Amino acid sequence: MTQFPQLNGFRGAPGLVRLVGHRGARGVMPENTLEGFEFTVKSGVVALEFDVVLTQDAVPVVTHNHHLLNAATRGADGKWLQGAELKVSELPLAQLQSYDVGGLDGRTVYGQRFPDQVFMSNVRVPTLGDLLDMALTPQGADMLFLLEMKSDPETAHTPEVTERLVSEVVKAVRTRGLEQRTVLHSFDWNLLEVCGRIAPDMPRSFLTIMPKNADDPGEDSSKSVAPDFAKLGMPVPQAVVEAGGQMWCPHYLDVTPEVVAQAHALGLLVSTWTVNEVDDMHRMIDAAVDGIVTDYPGRAQRVLLERGLVWNEDVARMVAE
Amino acid sequence: MTQFPQLNGFRGAPGLVRLVGHRGARGVMPENTLEGFEFTVKSGVVALEFDVVLTQDAVPVVTHNHHLLNAATRGADGKWLQGAELKVSELPLAQLQSYDVGGLDGRTVYGQRFPDQVFMSNVRVPTLGDLLDMALTPQGADMLFLLEMKSDPETAHTPEVTERLVSEVVKAVRTRGLEQRTVLHSFDWNLLEVCGRIAPDMPRSFLTIMPKNADDPGEDSSKSVAPDFAKLGMPVPQAVVEAGGQMWCPHYLDVTPEVVAQAHALGLLVSTWTVNEVDDMHRMIDAAVDGIVTDYPGRAQRVLLERGLVWNEDVARMVAE
Repeated sequence: MTQFPQLNGFRGAPGLVRLVGHRGARGVMPENTLEGFEFTVKSGVVALEFDVVLTQDAVPVVTHNHHLLNAATRGADGKWLQGAELKVSELPLAQLQSYDVGGLDGRTVYGQRFPDQVFMSNVRVPTLGDLLDMALTPQGADMLFLLEMKSDPETAHTPEVTERLVSEVVKAVRTRGLEQRTVLHSFDWNLLEVCGRIAPDMPRSFLTIMPKNADDPGEDSSKSVAPDFAKLGMPVPQAVVEAGGQMWCPHYLDVTPEVVAQAHALGLLVSTWTVNEVDDMHRMIDAAVDGIVTDYPGRAQRVLLERGLVWNEDVARMVAE
Repeated sequence: MTQFPQLNGFRGAPGLVRLVGHRGARGVMPENTLEGFEFTVKSGVVALEFDVVLTQDAVPVVTHNHHLLNAATRGADGKWLQGAELKVSELPLAQLQSYDVGGLDGRTVYGQRFPDQVFMSNVRVPTLGDLLDMALTPQGADMLFLLEMKSDPETAHTPEVTERLVSEVVKAVRTRGLEQRTVLHSFDWNLLEVCGRIAPDMPRSFLTIMPKNADDPGEDSSKSVAPDFAKLGMPVPQAVVEAGGQMWCPHYLDVTPEVVAQAHALGLLVSTWTVNEVDDMHRMIDAAVDGIVTDYPGRAQRVLLERGLVWNEDVARMVAE
């Protein structure tokens, strides 16, 4: 019994480790696209992690960086964008959706990270609403959302900007009645505090990465919006609990059996990201995390099965418990 | 201009190397399933290679081996089958479709060959008709079929058995008006002779693997139904032409620039299988094949793009040429 039924879909148990599709299934399909989310759900991985930013006209859209990554963005001529990268918050939705985000440029460092990702055309940045609508269709009936809000380091300390992002996101969730299928997720603990005030009926997930673990090429850093962990004065899981969190999402290089046990003792769920290599998956399972966030859901399914583990029961039944 | 418009979809050109999804996209999705074919086509790879066998009640179905592979076949209890493998030609369609072919057993040699393949449930062996019907939908409008007929070594020399397989397959194609989107494909040159007689309006593709290249674990061998290449008395491409073929599909370990040039000089198209590693893809491109048959269509797309090559134009336009 819990206040937040969706947390059951992120909770591990003996024999059960949860899988969460990272940006859909970035290893296989273009990230943060409806095409990728559909693939992941059809594969049987119904919990999706993804990233939300606001457009210039205040529409929540599903994309990772504050600037469109040229290596993943093509113009009307079919060619990857060049020069200074466009800022999502300065683009109206219509312009944003004129770009094609179906294919990676393999000549870039970012493109080389995902050499098996298919190359599609006429794929658009989805709105948050488009993705949430999938959950209302029969094929999306079991979908759960680990909804990350991205704080722009340039404006993260302007309260109105944070309020506007949270408000628009929460409105999109509430309009569709998906409060019990969504977890609010961020690196920005100030933003998560706003979530606690605006949406106390939804659980919160605190993302962390310790400064020693380098940022990934091609991706916005979280450092400038995260708390100064050296100054917390307590272990991170305890700080998450004191900040009102229900879930903790540490980077996989920060995970040990000891910190997971500590978090569990405090009543937190632990999902770790982004776990793409087989050896790391085994190590995370051995550390007894509740869930694994991965770009390769098929690979993770197979690792679990080979250990006699599963990632899912009937999610609808669990949510009803 | 050609007698067989579908061959344009398998023909290379400067800057263009064709991609063919092997059993759909076996590296990513369960092989020879509608789910896998749909994924491949959505990925932008519209030419599909797959395998057809007849059930006990003479329904052409899409599956590779004459016996259902226990490592890929689960019963009503959700567990992989055990013991002697069931023979497709001894099962009525209804019984065949009671099994779930959505997931590999990773503890087997065959399962270990495809560690990223997603694990799905409630996936059935499709009928040939089910697959062909996809080509009549808007999303399948560009689909092309490299339709392999599997000769059972136990009965391959019984003419009625071969005739029945070819007749049922050709009937399924003709019923849907897909004669100009299908290539008939086999290791069994006797069967291909029957195709030439029953379906002279469809092109034929001759599969070969030289005996020195070992058979793949978990898959029926083609050796006993293929010709004795040592006794052909001429190069293989010439023998394909004399047997009335338009396409030659050699195993990738048998491909050299010289044999491809020889085949092209004779007017044959060359598609090679099953090319899954990046280095092998490069070698096949360097050998100037027309097409690459792969379990990893996304990986092959990326290899082509990094060399400034593409795999597809507007297939509908090509077919109309």
